[in-house]
Amino acid sequence: MRYLVLTLAFIFCMATSAMAKAPLTQLPQDITVEEAQKVLNAALVKAVDQGVPMNIAVVDAGGNLKAFLRQDGAFLGSIDVSTKKAITARLFNMSTEALGKESLPDKSLYGIEVTNDGLVVFGGGELIIRDNMIIGAIGVSGGSVQEDMNVAKAGAAAIK
Amino acid sequence: MRYLVLTLAFIFCMATSAMAKAPLTQLPQDITVEEAQKVLNAALVKAVDQGVPMNIAVVDAGGNLKAFLRQDGAFLGSIDVSTKKAITARLFNMSTEALGKESLPDKSLYGIEVTNDGLVVFGGGELIIRDNMIIGAIGVSGGSVQEDMNVAKAGAAAIK
Amino acid sequence: MRYLVLTLAFIFCMATSAMAKAPLTQLPQDITVEEAQKVLNAALVKAVDQGVPMNIAVVDAGGNLKAFLRQDGAFLGSIDVSTKKAITARLFNMSTEALGKESLPDKSLYGIEVTNDGLVVFGGGELIIRDNMIIGAIGVSGGSVQEDMNVAKAGAAAIK
Amino acid sequence: MRYLVLTLAFIFCMATSAMAKAPLTQLPQDITVEEAQKVLNAALVKAVDQGVPMNIAVVDAGGNLKAFLRQDGAFLGSIDVSTKKAITARLFNMSTEALGKESLPDKSLYGIEVTNDGLVVFGGGELIIRDNMIIGAIGVSGGSVQEDMNVAKAGAAAIK
Repeated sequence: MRYLVLTLAFIFCMATSAMAKAPLTQLPQDITVEEAQKVLNAALVKAVDQGVPMNIAVVDAGGNLKAFLRQDGAFLGSIDVSTKKAITARLFNMSTEALGKESLPDKSLYGIEVTNDGLVVFGGGELIIRDNMIIGAIGVSGGSVQEDMNVAKAGAAAIK
Repeated sequence: MRYLVLTLAFIFCMATSAMAKAPLTQLPQDITVEEAQKVLNAALVKAVDQGVPMNIAVVDAGGNLKAFLRQDGAFLGSIDVSTKKAITARLFNMSTEALGKESLPDKSLYGIEVTNDGLVVFGGGELIIRDNMIIGAIGVSGGSVQEDMNVAKAGAAAIK
Repeated sequence: MRYLVLTLAFIFCMATSAMAKAPLTQLPQDITVEEAQKVLNAALVKAVDQGVPMNIAVVDAGGNLKAFLRQDGAFLGSIDVSTKKAITARLFNMSTEALGKESLPDKSLYGIEVTNDGLVVFGGGELIIRDNMIIGAIGVSGGSVQEDMNVAKAGAAAIK
Repeated sequence: MRYLVLTLAFIFCMATSAMAKAPLTQLPQDITVEEAQKVLNAALVKAVDQGVPMNIAVVDAGGNLKAFLRQDGAFLGSIDVSTKKAITARLFNMSTEALGKESLPDKSLYGIEVTNDGLVVFGGGELIIRDNMIIGAIGVSGGSVQEDMNVAKAGAAAIK
């Protein structure tokens, strides 16, 4: 019995030591997979409620894809649009709707959509904010811009 | 009262007719969102069991992204690798491991990885087969190739 | 006088309130501009010491460019190589030298360099680690691989 | 002793001769790393003064990146925008503001922003001119277009 305890203690120490040596690979305050799923599920509920199938993408604070889901029958072209909406929102720390208003022909950011390998400058991309800190963004595409925005906002609202 | 009933019946007929006109936007036998989630969850169980964080991507029969999840701390570079593994498997209807064996310098498909905007020619991409019909593929990246393959196979096995 | 004080207090409150409303746009533990410059300068010292002009790139925890410098006469082609080295190291949480060893024709990650819009699989990309947490990476290109590695390691060593 | 001196003199001559053979790798009058840093630092002073975090990029006479810095919290999307602003200014030898005026829907260069892998056609890109010779350009992005222009002009003004 004592031998077993010692062995377990030894294994535990080794494991702890091994763990202590491996550096953290994700910044501690970045969006977690649980938060991303919470956002995605809240968005899905709204999408089902509206009855128009959607593509839903979630990116982290670095603008890298964290979660994605395409509902049955949703536009194939919206895989890229939803992902770019999420990325766009994070890249400029505002909704794609807000960015879009400034990128019209007579506004200050006209043409910005050709940068960053293509941005989306209409609604459907919203920031995900936890405790007043931007931890990622959600992008939604599949219906009218208003429908996309409804789903994106419902998703983003799942994190406070 | 009778007038109301007739009006409702008329509206109902019009609605049915309108619905009948909208064409189906997804092949009836393509992978469903429920199946994609089932694959993803089975893969996640294996990934958690192995203790190495993974990127998991599921594509449909058309090779288009259907679902994606990146566990906390998983390689950022594996967003693209996992997605490309799923696409690669479906593009050539075999596991990426099988394709890889044919793309070595002395084999018949040498260099194939630079086609299709980049393929992945090592293990971790597996076909999703329902009733002897390919309905999509799963791609996994984040650990050793063996660990990736374990997770991909666990995911693919969720559909029979 | 009292009026001025009250006005200033009011302005201060408004400013504080406005500041409190604006969400944080960078995760608190990500690499700072001071750290990036410290890495870049330490790398430069080594580069000058070696006498071979270099391109030096620093990316943050999300793999996004934070700082860059090209010494006079350094290879133009190394702008992209140095940046891709830094990105590659962060994307797979290891030095590009370590990744390279696994991407040879007879190794498990053969062909991985065609993913992620092009990776660099030879030495010169190193992780930047603060307090056992990956906060970014440095990529260096301009000389022999050994010279590049010397500079990259000197830069990365500036953060502990 | 005399032998040693002669040997060293011989080696020195060989070295000088070898150095003489290596061709110059940068045009003598192109922007130097010291000039690029001077431009970047002058821009930084203005950015800190304005209180809005910026991305600042400097390119050489060939339009190739020479120096870059992203302040903490600055837009991630402005890495590309600032770089493209600097490139755009040099590609057409005018400020991005000036080019932008000609690229509106009713002007002669309408649509030019989709060429060259994406140009930026609003203010924030300025030429760097030494002794009446264009030696590079600076691109700034992170705030309003006016704020970007203020920083870019402050940077460009550091070289005369």
